[in-house]
Amino acid sequence: MKVLIVGGGLVGSLCACYFGLRGHEVHIYDFRNDPRTEKLSKGRSINLALSTRGIEALSRVGVEGVILEHGIPMKGRMIHSKSGEKKSIPYDPVYKKCIYSVGRKHLNELLITEAEKYQNVHLHFNHKITSVNFEEKKIFFKSADNNNSELKEDKGDLIVGADGAFSIVRREMMKQPMFNFSQTYIEHGYRELTIPPANNFKMESNHLHIWPRGEFMLIALPNQDDSWTVTLFMPLVKFDELQGKEHAIKSFFQQNFPDALQLIGDSKVIEDFSKPSHLVSIKCTKYNVGNKAVILGDSAHAMVPFYGQGMNAGFEDCRILDEFIHSEGLDLEEALELFSITRAKNAEAICNLSMYNYSEMRQLVTQTSYILRKKLDNILYWLFSSKWIPLYQSITFTNIPYSECLQNRKRQNVILRNVFYVLLCASVTPISWYIFRWKQSL
Amino acid sequence: MKVLIVGGGLVGSLCACYFGLRGHEVHIYDFRNDPRTEKLSKGRSINLALSTRGIEALSRVGVEGVILEHGIPMKGRMIHSKSGEKKSIPYDPVYKKCIYSVGRKHLNELLITEAEKYQNVHLHFNHKITSVNFEEKKIFFKSADNNNSELKEDKGDLIVGADGAFSIVRREMMKQPMFNFSQTYIEHGYRELTIPPANNFKMESNHLHIWPRGEFMLIALPNQDDSWTVTLFMPLVKFDELQGKEHAIKSFFQQNFPDALQLIGDSKVIEDFSKPSHLVSIKCTKYNVGNKAVILGDSAHAMVPFYGQGMNAGFEDCRILDEFIHSEGLDLEEALELFSITRAKNAEAICNLSMYNYSEMRQLVTQTSYILRKKLDNILYWLFSSKWIPLYQSITFTNIPYSECLQNRKRQNVILRNVFYVLLCASVTPISWYIFRWKQSL
Repeated sequence: MKVLIVGGGLVGSLCACYFGLRGHEVHIYDFRNDPRTEKLSKGRSINLALSTRGIEALSRVGVEGVILEHGIPMKGRMIHSKSGEKKSIPYDPVYKKCIYSVGRKHLNELLITEAEKYQNVHLHFNHKITSVNFEEKKIFFKSADNNNSELKEDKGDLIVGADGAFSIVRREMMKQPMFNFSQTYIEHGYRELTIPPANNFKMESNHLHIWPRGEFMLIALPNQDDSWTVTLFMPLVKFDELQGKEHAIKSFFQQNFPDALQLIGDSKVIEDFSKPSHLVSIKCTKYNVGNKAVILGDSAHAMVPFYGQGMNAGFEDCRILDEFIHSEGLDLEEALELFSITRAKNAEAICNLSMYNYSEMRQLVTQTSYILRKKLDNILYWLFSSKWIPLYQSITFTNIPYSECLQNRKRQNVILRNVFYVLLCASVTPISWYIFRWKQSL
Repeated sequence: MKVLIVGGGLVGSLCACYFGLRGHEVHIYDFRNDPRTEKLSKGRSINLALSTRGIEALSRVGVEGVILEHGIPMKGRMIHSKSGEKKSIPYDPVYKKCIYSVGRKHLNELLITEAEKYQNVHLHFNHKITSVNFEEKKIFFKSADNNNSELKEDKGDLIVGADGAFSIVRREMMKQPMFNFSQTYIEHGYRELTIPPANNFKMESNHLHIWPRGEFMLIALPNQDDSWTVTLFMPLVKFDELQGKEHAIKSFFQQNFPDALQLIGDSKVIEDFSKPSHLVSIKCTKYNVGNKAVILGDSAHAMVPFYGQGMNAGFEDCRILDEFIHSEGLDLEEALELFSITRAKNAEAICNLSMYNYSEMRQLVTQTSYILRKKLDNILYWLFSSKWIPLYQSITFTNIPYSECLQNRKRQNVILRNVFYVLLCASVTPISWYIFRWKQSL
């Protein structure tokens, strides 16, 4: 069939590889230039954490190797306290799995090059989609070729919307009856800074560094060139307060992130401390319009970045969509319906978990109760292996559907609570017995 | 100032009266024909329940009298059981207040005629808004005058979006950063039927008739011409099941609404039982773009119709917006910001209550615990008057902000629970004492 993919970002280009591999005629339309001819674009996260779901999805089209080659493994979180102490918390102390820091631009370029290797995949950059007609399976666009003056169209057998959080395809879907949708901005924004590559001072590589400070936090992911991309997450009002006040910005960093300030450099912190970007969480149902169109990735479920699953969930969409469309006994409409039901449920779970994980990263990682539970979880994981996979590990290092991971966690909580009561009874009963005997002996 | 109102429906035309009365230059743009030259349009509810908030808002521009003249008072719900028994539950047994059934078309025509009386109010029907530029306070539209070919524009000092649940103004606002939005369709739809005017058989007028049947329900509101508009609310899947099956539709009505079927007529039920309309709940924040634009009514907060407050909340928006804009000490931007914060909080409350009231209408009205609580509430209302206003009465018969009504209800629940515990203790203590004495006397 002829597949029109709107959006040539990470998810769109991987999706093209899947359809390309199956021999379909694929056309990617993207309003931007080919990223391989472009400099780094501002306003999008620079590097991302690739984990098991993403790797699994890449491996099905045979590109995981070339991508992991460039990824930097991160085996745990490195927590920086205010006083400059550091503490490593491994992601998977039992099986030593790790996540990988990859550059968005690099990954996108690789995937586009991979997609292009299929003769049946055709790239159309500088083509801006203006609207979609689902009934006729047509997309309408303006292209830079003719100065954006003339409205052109293409007609396919399936329209795939992979055009991100502000998706045009989803916007058109919203006009369909019974389309539920929500977009929720959080009151926090983010700003990216950079620790330049250097030889004389460095942070421990192979870690995702976190400076949790309650109301706000700083994180750092390593880049290929030995530099670090540092992201400050903070309430928007706090950004507003500091905006333009060089002295206040410097003393804010000195007070809260003295070690990071030293690495980034005073002048660079002040220079790069401009308006923050916003963070939005998007949910909708359903993801398809009959057998005519489907959305996936951020256009179906944008999430706040605190579980590091946005890209991984999008890649997983591609794998599951491919499985459903090419599974025997399902026609295209049934496959898309099933995809929509399955993925919307799982997207809901990971969107909610991502929101929750923000407070975990800012606060909980420093709390004793949280650390104890994590230790207990890891012991049980070590003892019972696949029977007791802690939440973080199941989200990050398995392909178990997100909603099942969440269900498992709830089951684990119930078990732990019951065990606690049993232990309490078991310890209270002999104590009561001794007290009883002691009183009798008086 | 020059106010551009998008939408000339109920809320848009009342809003024009408010701005007109204050002497502003007002332009209403609506894509439809002037309703005064049109027949009844399909697909919109035919009559509506006007209550205190709506009446208060109408009275400020002096039009409540002419509207109430045409309204039919409904003093309570008439509950129809399956066996044909009927039971009247008054809305306000203490102060005998009632709600009014008014025709949407009639009310709209009246309000447009009222707005037109102001020389500074200008009507532009057959003008379809295509987009809005908030920065320049411009709206762009195509008009039927020139065959919709040419894109024209108008520039004002304030753009008011009163263009309903599928608002174009809101759609443009969604592109602003930090604009939260959700649209949720419920799994139930509705279909309107009619009981024709007749002399030989009739229902008790001055009531809103309800046939609660658990999973679905029928309601009927009286019209001026002695006919009744009957609405069936039911799960969409159930509509699908019955669609096109004449025999099944008839036996469904025979089984569940035998008395209503007799009044509507077999052939009319089958004839009018076509595709159901959908029900959507819409929430968003915020309602304004600086001092440039504001949305109100359904475009800001569409709700499911089960509390009868959609129109009333929209009319109340007009009153509150007028108060804020013309209150001393607030500039336009401050007034719009305050309007947005205040009304979004209250809209959230009434949207949620409306959703909840659906199950109340379908099920609770027949349950003993619900009826007892209602009775207890009414006794306390009678005893303590303004100190104990039951939820339904405060929503329907006062101008207390919706969110406060909800808070009051929560406070009332706590008080009742505490009183219950005190009474329980008070009755248990003497009983224990007697048991103790009795055992001693053995």
